[in-house]
Amino acid sequence: MKAPYWKSILIIAVVIAVPMAAQNKTDNAKRRDELKKPLVIASQGSFFVGGESKALPSAPARGGFAAGGDVTVNQMYVQYQTPPDGDRHVPVVMVHGCCLSSKTWETTPDGRMGWDEYFVRKGRSVYLADQSSRARSGFDPTTINAVRSGTVPPSQLPNVLMASHQTAWTIFRFGPTFGQTFPDGQFPIEAVDELYKQMIPDLNSTLPSPNPTWKNMAALAVKLKGAILMGHSESGFFPEQAALIDPTGIKGMISIEMPCATMNPTQISTLAKIPTLVMFGDHLGDVQGGGPANWSASYQGCQTFVQQLKSAGGDAEMMYLPELGIKGNSHMLMQDRNNLDLADLLINWIDKHVESKPKPTAKP
Amino acid sequence: MKAPYWKSILIIAVVIAVPMAAQNKTDNAKRRDELKKPLVIASQGSFFVGGESKALPSAPARGGFAAGGDVTVNQMYVQYQTPPDGDRHVPVVMVHGCCLSSKTWETTPDGRMGWDEYFVRKGRSVYLADQSSRARSGFDPTTINAVRSGTVPPSQLPNVLMASHQTAWTIFRFGPTFGQTFPDGQFPIEAVDELYKQMIPDLNSTLPSPNPTWKNMAALAVKLKGAILMGHSESGFFPEQAALIDPTGIKGMISIEMPCATMNPTQISTLAKIPTLVMFGDHLGDVQGGGPANWSASYQGCQTFVQQLKSAGGDAEMMYLPELGIKGNSHMLMQDRNNLDLADLLINWIDKHVESKPKPTAKP
Repeated sequence: MKAPYWKSILIIAVVIAVPMAAQNKTDNAKRRDELKKPLVIASQGSFFVGGESKALPSAPARGGFAAGGDVTVNQMYVQYQTPPDGDRHVPVVMVHGCCLSSKTWETTPDGRMGWDEYFVRKGRSVYLADQSSRARSGFDPTTINAVRSGTVPPSQLPNVLMASHQTAWTIFRFGPTFGQTFPDGQFPIEAVDELYKQMIPDLNSTLPSPNPTWKNMAALAVKLKGAILMGHSESGFFPEQAALIDPTGIKGMISIEMPCATMNPTQISTLAKIPTLVMFGDHLGDVQGGGPANWSASYQGCQTFVQQLKSAGGDAEMMYLPELGIKGNSHMLMQDRNNLDLADLLINWIDKHVESKPKPTAKP
Repeated sequence: MKAPYWKSILIIAVVIAVPMAAQNKTDNAKRRDELKKPLVIASQGSFFVGGESKALPSAPARGGFAAGGDVTVNQMYVQYQTPPDGDRHVPVVMVHGCCLSSKTWETTPDGRMGWDEYFVRKGRSVYLADQSSRARSGFDPTTINAVRSGTVPPSQLPNVLMASHQTAWTIFRFGPTFGQTFPDGQFPIEAVDELYKQMIPDLNSTLPSPNPTWKNMAALAVKLKGAILMGHSESGFFPEQAALIDPTGIKGMISIEMPCATMNPTQISTLAKIPTLVMFGDHLGDVQGGGPANWSASYQGCQTFVQQLKSAGGDAEMMYLPELGIKGNSHMLMQDRNNLDLADLLINWIDKHVESKPKPTAKP
């Protein structure tokens, strides 16, 4: 008796799907074992890029400290790890987003390996930068102290951004509204309280214009004799802003989930000389109360930007994860459950577009 | 012809001194070569200790973010590295001082290895904590935002400490007055601008009392199933403050260059159960304009504290470097040129007093 048509289909599907699942399982187990091996570091450390002296007002004294004198502001703290033979690959600089620090790239909220260590294990030198005015980079407190001493009105206080749990939940797209999750969501929501601890005051409003982090990122790329700059969210377009200041050290740009600024033809021409990857996750239009973030509009704006780079002869790619069949990624995709799969996508892109491909022939 | 007496002395001195100098040179060269070897890490990462939710005022909205909601404050960011067989030694927790971050313990201003990596290379698990309200631990900005919105008067603004270059020079004892150095000074003064970049605003005045860092340090020691707590300057007495909250995880205390608080007999009795080392550098009374720091008085107060611990049966030691013939150390002695020699002193103390010595018999 001949099996019905649908049974053949089913058998074929099982024959293909079961080995694929088994293969994935083997790959994951293999990777897990690999990641448990000791990590070998050729060198590690930390340093600063940039920073300028600024004179303090001569009065009043604060906390017993002598009044006046000079402080250093606008510097950018950078920590790094270089694997053995790290010079075989272009170093990667990772810069965090709003209300966060370099912790973004380290151990995930649920305790898995972050991109920082994974990239090192994949043979890349990794540089984590705290944005100027954030975390270990410090910030300029002179206006706060001037208001406290009465020499300046309270209206001049900086707007210190601090995202609440509720705001983060929807901006970071953990679910449609606070407390609700997406069924296919990749963020380890059981550990969301650990993410909340990473969220710290954002003092970018104390910075001069243009943002010194841009100049510092460009200078870091020069210092490293070539680097790939990666930004996320608030800093997502910082690689491009850095390249517009000084493109000489920037060998590639990875921009993750941010609004793309409108660029004029001269700017596009400069940026088109550098391989560029833009990455967006899932559920862009599926959240309510996202505050200042409109991810669908950001995605559309970045589509336009990528097209402009391509039209100018650039090597630019929009990696929209749902189009690759990768579903449920949040805004904090470097911490999502599939974060190392996404890291592999980036590393593959780097290998093909930054390290082995001939330079794109950008139109003058 | 018989050589005169002084010639014999000279010859003996040369015979002894030349091999000693050669020996030191060989030791230093040997260490330099050792430190250039790749570093093997069994595990590394970062996490938070502590932290509580706090409701934000419901108005006004800030920077387009929804008003109200909850934020997390008082958490303590910790990054760590564990060497292979790291469980053979008690982990070491390092906490930085005023107006600084964990950068204190990393690469020195002139680019040499910091205590963080050196301790790992000596087989110790190292945990660097940014104090609660500093750097990657974030701070509570609600009062600043309340003043900005007009609901609270400017007088309630926190006293944001920011040490000027001039203040740091004398408080850190780089020389008697700003711009002048001590002839035997160990601080790499040619790189002082790099130290200035490490100096960031201190927002401890925003913290509740008692300082949550104390509780977080005690909790970290418990989490690690035993740890040595090390503090410096502002945090120099934090190991003791942590032990008074919960001594169960604290296997040793290393307090570097700070005022020692006056302790009552019950407190001394608790602290005397834990091996304690206090370290002070040189030129304690040789600076002018040290501001709130009076190092001679701090040293005297800590001498009293150490004596009190000893009288209570404790294993306590004052390591006053000039008395050991080690001259010219600044307040930032973990960054001084002889920083790894000092690290060896600490590691030897740990080996003898925390790891191999029977527990001190503290009086009840």
